[in-house]
Amino acid sequence: MKNQLKHQLRVVKSSTSVLVKKMTSVDAATMTHANGDAKIAQSAKLVVKTPKGTRDHNPHQMSLRDPVFEKIKAIFKRFGAPCIDTPVFELKEILTGKYGEESKLIYDLEDQGGEKLSLRYDLTVPFARYLAMNKITNFKRYQISKVYRRDNPAMTRGRFREFYQCDFDIAGKYDTMIADSECVAIIASILKALGLPDFTIKINHRLILDGIFDVCGVPVDKFRTVCSSVDKLDKSPWEEVRKEITEQKGIAEEVADKIGKYVKLNGGKELIDELLENEELNRSTSGKQGLEEMKLLLQYCDFLNVSQNVVFDLSLARGLDYYTGVIYEAVLKATVVENGKNVGIGSVAGGGRYDNLVGMFDPKGKPVPCVGVSIGVERIFAYLEANAATKPRTTETQVLVCSAQKNLLEPKMKIVTELREADISAEILYKANPKILAQLQYGEENQIPLAIVIGNSEIENNVVKVKNIATREEEEIPRERLIEEIKERLKKI
Amino acid sequence: MKNQLKHQLRVVKSSTSVLVKKMTSVDAATMTHANGDAKIAQSAKLVVKTPKGTRDHNPHQMSLRDPVFEKIKAIFKRFGAPCIDTPVFELKEILTGKYGEESKLIYDLEDQGGEKLSLRYDLTVPFARYLAMNKITNFKRYQISKVYRRDNPAMTRGRFREFYQCDFDIAGKYDTMIADSECVAIIASILKALGLPDFTIKINHRLILDGIFDVCGVPVDKFRTVCSSVDKLDKSPWEEVRKEITEQKGIAEEVADKIGKYVKLNGGKELIDELLENEELNRSTSGKQGLEEMKLLLQYCDFLNVSQNVVFDLSLARGLDYYTGVIYEAVLKATVVENGKNVGIGSVAGGGRYDNLVGMFDPKGKPVPCVGVSIGVERIFAYLEANAATKPRTTETQVLVCSAQKNLLEPKMKIVTELREADISAEILYKANPKILAQLQYGEENQIPLAIVIGNSEIENNVVKVKNIATREEEEIPRERLIEEIKERLKKI
Repeated sequence: MKNQLKHQLRVVKSSTSVLVKKMTSVDAATMTHANGDAKIAQSAKLVVKTPKGTRDHNPHQMSLRDPVFEKIKAIFKRFGAPCIDTPVFELKEILTGKYGEESKLIYDLEDQGGEKLSLRYDLTVPFARYLAMNKITNFKRYQISKVYRRDNPAMTRGRFREFYQCDFDIAGKYDTMIADSECVAIIASILKALGLPDFTIKINHRLILDGIFDVCGVPVDKFRTVCSSVDKLDKSPWEEVRKEITEQKGIAEEVADKIGKYVKLNGGKELIDELLENEELNRSTSGKQGLEEMKLLLQYCDFLNVSQNVVFDLSLARGLDYYTGVIYEAVLKATVVENGKNVGIGSVAGGGRYDNLVGMFDPKGKPVPCVGVSIGVERIFAYLEANAATKPRTTETQVLVCSAQKNLLEPKMKIVTELREADISAEILYKANPKILAQLQYGEENQIPLAIVIGNSEIENNVVKVKNIATREEEEIPRERLIEEIKERLKKI
Repeated sequence: MKNQLKHQLRVVKSSTSVLVKKMTSVDAATMTHANGDAKIAQSAKLVVKTPKGTRDHNPHQMSLRDPVFEKIKAIFKRFGAPCIDTPVFELKEILTGKYGEESKLIYDLEDQGGEKLSLRYDLTVPFARYLAMNKITNFKRYQISKVYRRDNPAMTRGRFREFYQCDFDIAGKYDTMIADSECVAIIASILKALGLPDFTIKINHRLILDGIFDVCGVPVDKFRTVCSSVDKLDKSPWEEVRKEITEQKGIAEEVADKIGKYVKLNGGKELIDELLENEELNRSTSGKQGLEEMKLLLQYCDFLNVSQNVVFDLSLARGLDYYTGVIYEAVLKATVVENGKNVGIGSVAGGGRYDNLVGMFDPKGKPVPCVGVSIGVERIFAYLEANAATKPRTTETQVLVCSAQKNLLEPKMKIVTELREADISAEILYKANPKILAQLQYGEENQIPLAIVIGNSEIENNVVKVKNIATREEEEIPRERLIEEIKERLKKI
């Protein structure tokens, strides 16, 4: 019977040691995690592990993850979104040409005769494909699913090759910035609901960036590649980005320096007003339009009670090609300890406007303007796991049905069935004659609140004992009042 | 604004037409569905569709599916199971040699440098890999995830290339038949919870089948292949199976006829007793052991209150190689209409004991006995979709905040935020100045129960109007009592 108890313990231990590894050593994490958790079956020469960059989630991790998904779902619903689901793979050509330099990270399926398929890289392109395929022009939805990227895993910080995204998108031609502000508001609602109130949502606009590149003298055909370099400013200092722009991307030094002055700026409404007065930037039509839209967005953020978390940040560029308007990214102020140093968790949500993606799937190229946000939930889990004060229960069992003597499997099976039929979660041990101590120990290990104990005398007298496993208090109740009495006690616990 | 309303409608229509197709024409289903829902973007020559054998789920389908998953989850928890998650792909060699003839249906990933990967074919082999990798010898868990099979799609009956399985398994060395009976009981609980009380759970035992093959004169090395033929008895008459056994598998005609006598049998306890008296079958040790275990199982099924749904059926064989003991399969008595004919839905749950699978992943071959069940939820959906009387709502929005005049976006945004912060699901239309009729129409289409309507006079008088969208009743309430009043009204609805 002891064996039956061991698993939960083992899972607790292994999940603890994973956390310790995560928090103390990048090398250890790289060795064990980046290659998946590995145990080599030497005699059979079969390596028993999960694929590189992926992992299992044990019951303890699941009991942390599940409520987070539930909370995110609840907020998506609170903003009026229904849910859709799409296949894990798409026709390869659906994904082709949508991700710029990141395309090399797409997982392809083997050609086994038939269609060429790839695993989805995000939920945005499948959403756009769904809209175009069904000729939908107005739609709001959420989707919570796994996506796949052949990236270098950095599992300490929650970067995996298989990971969940939680997406909320609004498709349709609406009035300027209303849907965009809704996306910013939903990020704030979710982070607050998850108990992470200390965050900043950086906002920028691709048109403002284009305006800056324009007035600084970047050739139009280099806008996107310079934008990719600017995107690295959250991880690298300006000097490095400047070097990349001038040496790798062939931009003149004085042009780079002019860009440098702009992208260092961040602030609120006053910064927008200042830039709207800036004669240089105003020469660019797109720059001006971007600034005016940004001004409206900040006003709506104020109405939606999120302006205290929002900052207009000209260094924000976002990597993906398909954005066309407002872009945003939420950053937690919290840090995790890594090699004894505090390291920022970084971006936990991001998104923006992509007005041309759906049109790429339409025979006539008819565009459907879209704006959306994706919650990077794995990084949030990495933070929550590292900071979990107590271990949540992994099961919801309310009653353990125990026998104090031998040959009582029949009445135990009948009681456990009666309880379950009354919607009470109940278990018995899978032994014909387990020792009473082993049963109660199982109840304790699994934090089961109540035990029902029966012996021959209880059966004779038509009663059962109800035991509070934690306090060890015990009471006799009539057998026929079993369900009512148990329900009453469960209410009080 | 009308456009904003169209999507739900379109989704309703498209999901209806899918159902109609499903129920009326196999050919139509084969043409459109088996190739995924297709719209060809002709100018770009890009085929915008889902891959063969897969489909999207629109909000209406999701609102049918979601509660089903929730109910299944609740039952798994009621039996004391925690949850785990494993990656969608496994190392190819983990899956190799586990599925017998079905292996050819496994999806492989392209070799992009690195590990050779395959999409999971079921949740059982990954579970066994998880146990072996973590050296777990006692564990009960559930997992609800998608699996992948390059099968011929038959979408009318819910057979897809990407589909969900809901698995419950018990690993560990316990007393005979206790864990096995728990698996049978959980099938019954789930089908009852889903409102499908009319079902039969067929039960058999691999040792009984082996015993029959043995005493009938099948050579030991042909047990598994004859077993595969017998497995077809749920779809084909005995004459066809007999032909396969004799002509393709080279078994003598008199041997086949002897097998035929046995596999036609089904019944309850009395049949077991009869077979235990049967001198021929009793010559086989494994046959005898299988019968004795079956007798115990039927007794436990009685204690667990499921014997009325259980039948001992000697024709049940199950396709997969890894089963070693008890096997079972649940069949719904319900039918769906296909080409004007009533067709059975067939098996909606199945499983059995597999005592040697975990050992295949252990360096020393140490076995961990396991028994489990998989709920074939897609077939259940196919049935529920075909029989859904009303369309459930796709969103949970409780309040639509409307304006009766122009320039009221600011107070609307503030009210919608206040509602959401009080955990009330609320929406506004994404237009600066929508017409009041368009707003109320959106509320009606989406079955939103309440509308808050504000105009200039309401703002002046510090009140809001609350409207019941269905009954059109309207009341004025003080602005500062907004949340309490709305919550009170929502309770009543």
